[in-house]
Amino acid sequence: MPSHNSPRTRAPRGTLNPELIVDTAIDLIDRDGLAALSTRRLAGELAVRPMALYTHFRDKDAILAAVMTELLSRFEWPDPDVEDVEWLRQVMRAYFRLYTAYPALLQLDIQSTQKIDDVEAKITEQLYGRLARLNIDHRTAIGLLATLIRFVLGCATVYPTRHAWDEDPQHWERVRQEWARLPAEAYPSMHALTDDFPTFTQWDVFEFGLNAILAPLTEQG
Amino acid sequence: MPSHNSPRTRAPRGTLNPELIVDTAIDLIDRDGLAALSTRRLAGELAVRPMALYTHFRDKDAILAAVMTELLSRFEWPDPDVEDVEWLRQVMRAYFRLYTAYPALLQLDIQSTQKIDDVEAKITEQLYGRLARLNIDHRTAIGLLATLIRFVLGCATVYPTRHAWDEDPQHWERVRQEWARLPAEAYPSMHALTDDFPTFTQWDVFEFGLNAILAPLTEQG
Repeated sequence: MPSHNSPRTRAPRGTLNPELIVDTAIDLIDRDGLAALSTRRLAGELAVRPMALYTHFRDKDAILAAVMTELLSRFEWPDPDVEDVEWLRQVMRAYFRLYTAYPALLQLDIQSTQKIDDVEAKITEQLYGRLARLNIDHRTAIGLLATLIRFVLGCATVYPTRHAWDEDPQHWERVRQEWARLPAEAYPSMHALTDDFPTFTQWDVFEFGLNAILAPLTEQG
Repeated sequence: MPSHNSPRTRAPRGTLNPELIVDTAIDLIDRDGLAALSTRRLAGELAVRPMALYTHFRDKDAILAAVMTELLSRFEWPDPDVEDVEWLRQVMRAYFRLYTAYPALLQLDIQSTQKIDDVEAKITEQLYGRLARLNIDHRTAIGLLATLIRFVLGCATVYPTRHAWDEDPQHWERVRQEWARLPAEAYPSMHALTDDFPTFTQWDVFEFGLNAILAPLTEQG
């Protein structure tokens, strides 16, 4: 749970402060989704009156911006000395880890119409800097990053329901059997597949896609 | 709105039937999300008592399964005579169009733990059949399709908030200016980018990623 990962010390119970408001907002969004985050609801969780929140934040948008900044501050930067393509891979892994640890961020990112955040700006500058060093033209660089980010978002979107499959030793055998039960005449390819059924964890798929999308860069280098 | 796209004729007002229940459920999920779909809420929208729904469906899961089947039946099959890689491209475009037209499907797909749906099974068989014809081994085939589907999901997830950018002639100029305002010393790559700023619509990004992920197959053929 997010609050356990937080490096900050909580204020004593009953002391309202910005950190406690932000942590509670993150827990609430992770649990019930962004739509559930109203100042009334948030105040309820904190056992304070809604007006008390406005001592610390101008409005709900200011709370959301602080949530975004707090979550992005937990982004794990790769070692800058790593070579460029591996560095790109590590940045995408860091995003995937951040999104799976804090589904709240996924929802905020999708709906965000905010100004450029400092951490985002720093990451973006470095991403384009690495691609420029690899002699990737601007159009390809933007297309490639947009593709990678959408792929990471897609992986993160299915992760909450599917990562349970990774721990269930029976999951893929059940899927295999379900396909094998379909008539072979109508489903010849799926029958061929069930004879030699490769399984993937959610992270295996992530690594496969990351390599597939970055393949043109590794072939160059 | 989904109901306008529906080819079926609605029953006269006040006549409860499975089609009307499914159409109303689709509208409700599209508008307020899957979490909003309770049988109580659905009955309210239809101005009937919750018990009336159970004349037509066993339970809420049966309604969701019918919603899924109805939306998948609107999948636009590509021409089977198209060559294999272009056929794969057209299937992914059809998924993207379906997800953008019916965001409900996106939420259902992500949370689905259902048995294999007939339409899904038919699509899956054909996808693996085409990849087998291209001499793609099973492990690569599964990895590639999982990557494509996650990429499509990622594109569909950001589409509802970002497709407005496509129609706003000022959007990219504002983004360009925002980056150009950051200090050039700290953001040299972003400054270089703003001098020659390529813009993409959501569909441009989709096509770029589709080509990038399918590139190894086109190089073979």
